Amino acid sequence: MANISIIGSGTWGMALSLLLYKKGHTVKVWSAIKEEVDMLREKREHKNLPGVPIPEDMEITGDLEACIKGADLMVLSVPSVFTRATAKRMAPFVENGQIIVNVAKGIEEESLMTLSEQIEEEIPCANVAVLSGPSHAEEVGRGIPTTCVVGARDKKTAEYIQNIFMCSVFRVYTSPDIMGIELGGSLKNVIALAAGVADGLGYGDNTKAALITRGMAEITRLALKMGARMETMYGLSGVGDLIVTCASMHSRNRRAGILIGQGKTMDEAMKEVQMVVEGVYSAKAASKLADKYGVQMPITKEINKVLFEGKKASDAVEDLMLRDKGIEHPNIPWEQ
Amino acid sequence: MANISIIGSGTWGMALSLLLYKKGHTVKVWSAIKEEVDMLREKREHKNLPGVPIPEDMEITGDLEACIKGADLMVLSVPSVFTRATAKRMAPFVENGQIIVNVAKGIEEESLMTLSEQIEEEIPCANVAVLSGPSHAEEVGRGIPTTCVVGARDKKTAEYIQNIFMCSVFRVYTSPDIMGIELGGSLKNVIALAAGVADGLGYGDNTKAALITRGMAEITRLALKMGARMETMYGLSGVGDLIVTCASMHSRNRRAGILIGQGKTMDEAMKEVQMVVEGVYSAKAASKLADKYGVQMPITKEINKVLFEGKKASDAVEDLMLRDKGIEHPNIPWEQ
Repeated sequence: MANISIIGSGTWGMALSLLLYKKGHTVKVWSAIKEEVDMLREKREHKNLPGVPIPEDMEITGDLEACIKGADLMVLSVPSVFTRATAKRMAPFVENGQIIVNVAKGIEEESLMTLSEQIEEEIPCANVAVLSGPSHAEEVGRGIPTTCVVGARDKKTAEYIQNIFMCSVFRVYTSPDIMGIELGGSLKNVIALAAGVADGLGYGDNTKAALITRGMAEITRLALKMGARMETMYGLSGVGDLIVTCASMHSRNRRAGILIGQGKTMDEAMKEVQMVVEGVYSAKAASKLADKYGVQMPITKEINKVLFEGKKASDAVEDLMLRDKGIEHPNIPWEQ
Repeated sequence: MANISIIGSGTWGMALSLLLYKKGHTVKVWSAIKEEVDMLREKREHKNLPGVPIPEDMEITGDLEACIKGADLMVLSVPSVFTRATAKRMAPFVENGQIIVNVAKGIEEESLMTLSEQIEEEIPCANVAVLSGPSHAEEVGRGIPTTCVVGARDKKTAEYIQNIFMCSVFRVYTSPDIMGIELGGSLKNVIALAAGVADGLGYGDNTKAALITRGMAEITRLALKMGARMETMYGLSGVGDLIVTCASMHSRNRRAGILIGQGKTMDEAMKEVQMVVEGVYSAKAASKLADKYGVQMPITKEINKVLFEGKKASDAVEDLMLRDKGIEHPNIPWEQ
């Protein structure tokens, strides 16, 4: 069994802590916020995982150095906007080849870098991997069968992490395609927003399925240009995660989309959802990436117009339906 | 505008008839059942499309020859079990190069042939195309924005059909990959059944997303061996249609799956759903195809055990979770 530190005590970090603890690993949890450390130590329960007790011998701490020194594996689970800053704080303590598994999703708006790229830039000596997939933290906390994919640079690291996490309710696949896992995980939030808008407009299942499928086609076009693999985009961390997001009212991206479809502005929707809506930032990043890589992304472009230029959502859907007649996948050759 | 005949007056055939009529085409509808012809002529409404009137000048007929002679395009929309027999009846009247667009889904259990292959065998002189996608007939009948893909042997035919169907609420893409469109459309029903089973077992969104994503991965593996393209499997007629199916309580495959997950036998579930559950037949065909082409299809195999060998559904899910540790997509190479 391994010594594992979870960096970040959000819902997902805590659900993974409990999963790893139950497997018999020694688990420490770090939080940047003193009040959170105190609260978790005292209540032994996370507010978003009610009814799931935190065992007494799972250490909750604010001491980052102690969490890094001697850890066989670190799980980095802070919100994506804090990933770079947290990596910078970790850097002085990380030893050559120490494994950091990032489990957050996002793209930095200015640099257009993925999270693992940011971590590698801040901690060049670390062995950075990612874990992603269709995994509501609430369900993992309750022991509901879940699957994820681990991406790492080398097979040995991937299999090591797979062995650390895998159990009868958490099936882990391995993959070398870190870029695909990260792009799928963050760009899919743009499509979840669009699907939410269709729901908010009252458009039914056909329209939503169209937006999801064509949305996946366009983020895949982009990801392929950036070096990702198609299989990964249509794997657990891409379309799998998107399916969970679009099915769930827990999803902030979907809820924000529904509100916008109902006629609210982006700011009103963000205020009502009361949390960071990752898809709004990803939409902007995706649009910039589309320009940078010269990829047609009609749904992403329309969502940006709705979010940032005040375009009516119903006009956006109509414009998407009436575009030039398309070939579904222009790269497949015709017989004649 | 074109002369179009719809062969088969089911819900989907009628929804497409009305869509084409509204675009200004001359539309005739044929049914094999005299009572159905009489009922539609009299009531001018289909029982599954309430509130959607059938215009007086849309001809409903039992005269197959009159429907075929002079038709610019025929839409074949009979249930898949009747496709071959209907094609056989049509054959004597079809002229060289006449276009038949098949809109049903299925694989013949003994021959393991797709529907277009059966039609081409029965009517070798016809120009056979397919139309498929995430399209509840009820929503198309109500004018809700919908997308489909048309597959044809040559680009000219595909674009001709695209022009016939496309309008502001029905966006049509073209594709040369007939095999992919047909395999996606029929095999996805097996996955919809599995997803329904997970729902019936009370497993939540993570498990369902896992089954859908890994299910898509395995039917795609098979389809690629049979000559289909990956893009098509993850396009409108594959994953797009699957998303609609899994989201909807209209889906017989999903409903049957839920009942089986709740402990009913296949026969009890079929009786309660009271309609043909296409996924049950496709599951058998998919299992045979897996053996024929030497493809690993663990979800399909487990579903077959549940359907035909009395295996407990919860045991099947547990066995799937505890299989050998897997690589997500074994064809992607590792750096080292």
